[in-house]
Amino acid sequence: MTIRKAKTKDLPGILRLVHELAEYELAADQVTATIDDYQKAFQDNVFDALVAVDKDGKITGTCIFCITWSTWKGKMLYLEDFVVDRHLRQSGIGQKLFDATINHAKKLHCALIKWQVLDWNRPALKFYEKNKAVIEKEWWNGKIYL
Amino acid sequence: MTIRKAKTKDLPGILRLVHELAEYELAADQVTATIDDYQKAFQDNVFDALVAVDKDGKITGTCIFCITWSTWKGKMLYLEDFVVDRHLRQSGIGQKLFDATINHAKKLHCALIKWQVLDWNRPALKFYEKNKAVIEKEWWNGKIYL
Repeated sequence: MTIRKAKTKDLPGILRLVHELAEYELAADQVTATIDDYQKAFQDNVFDALVAVDKDGKITGTCIFCITWSTWKGKMLYLEDFVVDRHLRQSGIGQKLFDATINHAKKLHCALIKWQVLDWNRPALKFYEKNKAVIEKEWWNGKIYL
Repeated sequence: MTIRKAKTKDLPGILRLVHELAEYELAADQVTATIDDYQKAFQDNVFDALVAVDKDGKITGTCIFCITWSTWKGKMLYLEDFVVDRHLRQSGIGQKLFDATINHAKKLHCALIKWQVLDWNRPALKFYEKNKAVIEKEWWNGKIYL
């Protein structure tokens, strides 16, 4: 298993994992972005990703992120999706991907990494607690669809 | 009062408003990003902003945002800070800035705008409800400072 920066050819495998995570989050029907959308945005550097790849070249995990701005702290890596293939949970791939994402953020001189987690997702919360993350419960999300 | 894209010379006025909002959010001591950080990141296109400017050229409000990626919906304008000078609340500047931000997101072909609001910030929640925003309460934030 290797971890590396994503390439355009990885996008179908990445989108498959996005769908898998959305299903786990009971939101499968909410994924409307298409592979064409992914390809265009990836070329335009709207997002970037790290991938875990097995010896057969299959994408087994991904961290999808954007470089953003914390008005309080400065440059921030926003981790939009972090997902490991459901058949490979507890295998250590997640920790390796997460560590690689932290290292990538450090290399880019980010002041912090931020992400969101559903309040009922105990396994994810346990993982983040193990990684000494700060968990904030007092912020709500606002959204307007255009 | 005019609303326009931010320029480098606006950054001190923008950072002043960031400090003002952080104070309101009981987090004044958490703002560690400096004007130098702001200037470098703005030049590097890490973030962008709209500003409201009064007839004397003073920055009276700002929406600070990043163009990011929703793995579910596609291109997303993430509104990191939205603040109006405390002496000018209820003057309509906020609504004009918010409308301009929505228009800007549409022009960039974003699928949605997203932001966060503190669960006790009733005036902000009322404003967002008036604007028919979806408010989600089930997501927690995770953070690791680097």
